[in-house]
Amino acid sequence: MDTKVVPDLISSERVEGTKVYNTEGDKLGSIEQLMIDKRSGHVRYAVLEFGGILGVGTDHYPMPWSILKYDTRLDGYVVPIDKNALREAPRYRDDESPVYDVDYGRRVYRHYGVDERL
Amino acid sequence: MDTKVVPDLISSERVEGTKVYNTEGDKLGSIEQLMIDKRSGHVRYAVLEFGGILGVGTDHYPMPWSILKYDTRLDGYVVPIDKNALREAPRYRDDESPVYDVDYGRRVYRHYGVDERL
Repeated sequence: MDTKVVPDLISSERVEGTKVYNTEGDKLGSIEQLMIDKRSGHVRYAVLEFGGILGVGTDHYPMPWSILKYDTRLDGYVVPIDKNALREAPRYRDDESPVYDVDYGRRVYRHYGVDERL
Repeated sequence: MDTKVVPDLISSERVEGTKVYNTEGDKLGSIEQLMIDKRSGHVRYAVLEFGGILGVGTDHYPMPWSILKYDTRLDGYVVPIDKNALREAPRYRDDESPVYDVDYGRRVYRHYGVDERL
């Protein structure tokens, strides 16, 4: 291979805390953490943190990494989902731990219209 | 697909700060950050932070994700590399920013004897 393709990398620390907007420019929340498949090293979900006051009552929305598009103007990610669709999205609350099993993954990926890569 | 394989996930926040040991049980440092391929969502490097006093003069060692094996007894990652091999490993200092291009990736992956997945 002599192709000079440079992988475009970003630090996990830089992603965490980055604001997330919808395509209308409404702020939805920010990225809390990335959930990584231990074996493959693949980012399975980026978790959007949303709502709550002083971190109390926050909702957490796992999303496929591939729907996050960085917008330099907003200095944040844009996801193609409106606020109503977000209301229906798979989420968990602070006191919940989702079981990230195959069915859960399917629900998440389907909700955002993304092909699963399990 | 009806296989009930559950992807074994870990949070980026949990990985960051986790201690790293060699197979002899010597502490090498801790994971500083993960470098993620923006397009594929694949963790390209886990960066080991090592040395320095109060964060001054720290060295940073990008490593392939796949060489990190979690050891519950140590509550940290074990990497199959001795301290001498670490001395020869690709690294950068605080005031340096590596150009994560194809050649750099090759050097890193080769040093740790891991097949490249660019």
